[in-house]
Amino acid sequence: MIDPQRYPRLSRILVPADLRQFPEEELPAIAEELRAYLIEQVALVGGHFGAGLGVIELTVALHWLYETPVDRLVWDVGHQCYPHKILTGRRDEIHTVKQKDGVAPFPKREESEYDTFGVGHSSTSISAALGMAIALQQVNDERKVVAVIGDGAMTAGMAFEALAHAGGMGSDPGSIEPNLLVILNDNQMSISENVGGVTRMLGRLTGSRTLNAIREGGKKLLGDKHRAPARFVKRWEEHWKGMFVPSTFFEEVGFHYTGPIDGHDLPALLAALKTLKGLKGPQLLHIITTKGKGYELAEGDQIGYHAVGPFDPEKGLVSKSGTKKPTYTDVFGEWLCDMAATEPKLLGITPAMREGSGLVRFSKEYPQRYFDVAIAEQHAVTLAAGMACEGAKPVVAIYSTFLQRGYDQLVHDVAIQNLDVLFAIDRGGVVGPDGATHAGNLDLSYLRCVPNMVVMAPADEDECRKMLSTGYHYRGPAAVRYPRGTGPGVAVQPTLDTLPVGKAQLRRRGSKLALLAFGAIVPAAEQVGEELGLTVVNMRFVRPLDRALILELARSHDGIVTLEDNVVAGGAGSGVAELLAAENIQLPILHLGLPDEFQHHASREQLLAEAGLDANGIRTSLLQRWPGLAAAGPRSAAV
Amino acid sequence: MIDPQRYPRLSRILVPADLRQFPEEELPAIAEELRAYLIEQVALVGGHFGAGLGVIELTVALHWLYETPVDRLVWDVGHQCYPHKILTGRRDEIHTVKQKDGVAPFPKREESEYDTFGVGHSSTSISAALGMAIALQQVNDERKVVAVIGDGAMTAGMAFEALAHAGGMGSDPGSIEPNLLVILNDNQMSISENVGGVTRMLGRLTGSRTLNAIREGGKKLLGDKHRAPARFVKRWEEHWKGMFVPSTFFEEVGFHYTGPIDGHDLPALLAALKTLKGLKGPQLLHIITTKGKGYELAEGDQIGYHAVGPFDPEKGLVSKSGTKKPTYTDVFGEWLCDMAATEPKLLGITPAMREGSGLVRFSKEYPQRYFDVAIAEQHAVTLAAGMACEGAKPVVAIYSTFLQRGYDQLVHDVAIQNLDVLFAIDRGGVVGPDGATHAGNLDLSYLRCVPNMVVMAPADEDECRKMLSTGYHYRGPAAVRYPRGTGPGVAVQPTLDTLPVGKAQLRRRGSKLALLAFGAIVPAAEQVGEELGLTVVNMRFVRPLDRALILELARSHDGIVTLEDNVVAGGAGSGVAELLAAENIQLPILHLGLPDEFQHHASREQLLAEAGLDANGIRTSLLQRWPGLAAAGPRSAAV
Repeated sequence: MIDPQRYPRLSRILVPADLRQFPEEELPAIAEELRAYLIEQVALVGGHFGAGLGVIELTVALHWLYETPVDRLVWDVGHQCYPHKILTGRRDEIHTVKQKDGVAPFPKREESEYDTFGVGHSSTSISAALGMAIALQQVNDERKVVAVIGDGAMTAGMAFEALAHAGGMGSDPGSIEPNLLVILNDNQMSISENVGGVTRMLGRLTGSRTLNAIREGGKKLLGDKHRAPARFVKRWEEHWKGMFVPSTFFEEVGFHYTGPIDGHDLPALLAALKTLKGLKGPQLLHIITTKGKGYELAEGDQIGYHAVGPFDPEKGLVSKSGTKKPTYTDVFGEWLCDMAATEPKLLGITPAMREGSGLVRFSKEYPQRYFDVAIAEQHAVTLAAGMACEGAKPVVAIYSTFLQRGYDQLVHDVAIQNLDVLFAIDRGGVVGPDGATHAGNLDLSYLRCVPNMVVMAPADEDECRKMLSTGYHYRGPAAVRYPRGTGPGVAVQPTLDTLPVGKAQLRRRGSKLALLAFGAIVPAAEQVGEELGLTVVNMRFVRPLDRALILELARSHDGIVTLEDNVVAGGAGSGVAELLAAENIQLPILHLGLPDEFQHHASREQLLAEAGLDANGIRTSLLQRWPGLAAAGPRSAAV
Repeated sequence: MIDPQRYPRLSRILVPADLRQFPEEELPAIAEELRAYLIEQVALVGGHFGAGLGVIELTVALHWLYETPVDRLVWDVGHQCYPHKILTGRRDEIHTVKQKDGVAPFPKREESEYDTFGVGHSSTSISAALGMAIALQQVNDERKVVAVIGDGAMTAGMAFEALAHAGGMGSDPGSIEPNLLVILNDNQMSISENVGGVTRMLGRLTGSRTLNAIREGGKKLLGDKHRAPARFVKRWEEHWKGMFVPSTFFEEVGFHYTGPIDGHDLPALLAALKTLKGLKGPQLLHIITTKGKGYELAEGDQIGYHAVGPFDPEKGLVSKSGTKKPTYTDVFGEWLCDMAATEPKLLGITPAMREGSGLVRFSKEYPQRYFDVAIAEQHAVTLAAGMACEGAKPVVAIYSTFLQRGYDQLVHDVAIQNLDVLFAIDRGGVVGPDGATHAGNLDLSYLRCVPNMVVMAPADEDECRKMLSTGYHYRGPAAVRYPRGTGPGVAVQPTLDTLPVGKAQLRRRGSKLALLAFGAIVPAAEQVGEELGLTVVNMRFVRPLDRALILELARSHDGIVTLEDNVVAGGAGSGVAELLAAENIQLPILHLGLPDEFQHHASREQLLAEAGLDANGIRTSLLQRWPGLAAAGPRSAAV
């Protein structure tokens, strides 16, 4: 429970209606309590950190000024939603964030009426908020709609699409101008540093000390803003600010631009918001904030403090000593550098996920072959296609869930043209604490139906490396899809050896049933296979399948079990069944995979267990279908 | 063969090297011949028309000035590529465009080395060209890369992503500025009129007669552009043009902007291109053209002449008399208006496909409930999600192939939140003459794996209407996926009746085999079923499947045949097999569907026949698997 001594105001705020009981003068003090409480709680259990600290004042101002949840507040991405959650009924549960049955790490509609739109992927807020504003205006509902979007999220095409639509609506025949406030939370960061033209565009401001000095001078001079000299200075300022700040861009697409203002200056923020609240049409408020604001260590290491595990607030993050087990991401990162050393035509691409995708070392060692395209998955994929046209070999490092954003480009630009692009797909299958928005549960299905693709899923770390080399040397579109976190701990050979395309690995020759396992689930399958004396295959290739082996096993066994950490619908196992059907082979088939539902947030292990994809679950499923197996026991040795 | 009397120059040009033999003075005459030839040829056989006429001068200028195919020329979308194809070895075959074994309607890498990047979907050119430029620079290859993109295509987010990446590269640490020329072909149209903020932004220019007058005056005054007064005027002009033309936007993201110039003024175009060819870094040339230029009727009806059937060039397009069979698109358009009349909360959304998706009448009758978001599929889907959050019922009308662009939004914003959005998916399955880029062969696979979705495929026009009503009233995400063109011609009932969700329709009770057909293939399946005395089911629902009926039929038949106009991999039939496997039912299954390859362009009927999905093909496949059927003949009557 919250300590009323330490948090005299925050302890009295359960929901925004409580907040709105406080007079405006007390809001800065509330903001300070909220900041302290966020640091305390996140230090306790870990979670997204820097982004929340950057929007403390904004969160307080919005919930105080707007009638949430009647007025609609849409947070982009949602990394920054912890202060919002604390003020909207989840103060005492925020320490359960990301845990099973705990608070979700992102806004989630089913969790709270204050969470108006579920997120996790970036750059959706303007579209969603515009949709809300339109729907409300259709029924003459005067409720306000506010979207808060970071400058990092502004680099994604869909944010641009939404801005252009909203801004242009007033001039379209028959259209009504939408009443919508977009707050651009400009902290010059996404998760990594921002890159690209948008940053360049937005970045002009802060480089200009002159302008800031002028503005400060102007403020002092102005006094009452309605007096004539004030108006003149204002006009003069607007003329010049176009040369330093991005007003032009937003105004060109049809938004009315206000800003930039200091997002940590609560009185200034409130003043601006009060004015904007009364205005019609598409409004953009540009605020400048600091990611990690108020916790010095986080301000100094914004990437490191984006998301954290538990830590001592006095000491900050301490790097863990000892050699930890490498993650699949680490395996990819090492492989990329090693392959680049021997392959000059290798180019590496990431859509703003340098740290998450394991590209830090590559970006330092091969800066001219490293391309961070910002949050721009569509462009990332077609850029790779263009590179491949001229003989380069691009490697697109991307999370499974974000590849959904580049799906058309994968089909239309890469696969149709059979271009030589390697996709290194991280976070395939069950992802865990980040919840359904980050899950990679669908990728085998949406990739397997695409002609020309080769799709691989490694059973362990060493195989992941070999598959990456295999995909690299394969002439055409290929994907290696590996899970989040660590694997079984198999030592990774430093070679660049490849695997034969379309060949599975027989792990264990048993009898009765053949377990055909894809990717991360192989070790669990092998364990159960050994216990019950079954044949176990590490399938390796989702596409093309090892046809010869499957047919041989189908003829020599009483049943086939497919296992994968993908939904069953259209997944790898479904491909096995299609092959058997085409060959007119009938035998019992059991498909084990992820359920036909969006999984909630919990640890990876918990979710796999819930889905029945750990050894216990697999065993249970097998015995349920084939009760006789229990009695039989192991009947043959490993191959 | 081309007539040398009528085309004295063009008849001597087979490839661009021939064009480059002509002196610059003759280029306008060549452009005129090219224009006349294009009108003649397209009038003969039909095809994309207006866009090509708009880039005659540009095409001549580019191939004359650049060393194609050594220099890389990337056309966006490709509607405008016919003049390019005529000048690059396909002059005498252009009349075969869109036909089986004929010239492809879009640039296609396997067709010609001059087609550097295959297209069909818009807005890929900057990404692809940037990828090429980067790959060439990596190996110090000095070849030039030019992308030509329409203003319509600029509305898509991925074009913005690419601009921002290219423009920002010079300022990223370690990055080299790419050498890339983007030509913005601004005709103020995509296929329909353009809408939204980008148009607003670009549209400022043409509204400004003053500026044009000033510019014209300036030109006369200038003379030698290197003299001091000229430089002064230039500077003055640059200062002012930012207020009228979009230079600011492009320069803010880091491009050097030139323009706007008249894209039909060949000498001006050549002068600009000659200068730009020598410049380094990201360059943008803004040209203004007229879609349909030089064919008066097309200039006057740019939408009607975007793509045409054969016509008499003297008379132009004549509207066909008589009542033609309604297409599925027509059925949707009528339904939308009828449903809107009774359902005030219905809102209609199209990403720039008003005509193609059948929304013309709706846009006129319900202008305030009609939302053309421009070419912006990602935004279209999330906008709908936002609308649904506030109680509206959005209907997203979209082509199957373009929904790939909104896939992440469908999963992340609609399905995860189980929001109440109806997708009316046109051009599902085999599309035909537009080729692989426009095919809807994958949608059942990539939709079926998404939890919460309801997916329907109608067997005929009336059922399509009923499914739309069903999806409309279903509370949650639903999709009706129907084919291009006309159906079997079933009369459409004007009611708004619905179908029971997840219930199939037994069309014919036979014996031996049960044919489970999904969507457009039902009539062919029924024909074969009658001939051979088999059971035939119109499945209606791809998801959820009619579990009870499938299980009953599996128990009462010797085999199951699934039929669909989707790839077999992960398709609807695969779902049937998954269900049977889960129920531990073994019987022979035959999956008939589209092949595991990208189909080339040909008529819909030809492609279906090639895939073995017409009645003949289906019969052949059945008899191949079950030779005994031939002798048996019909054994039972229809239900």
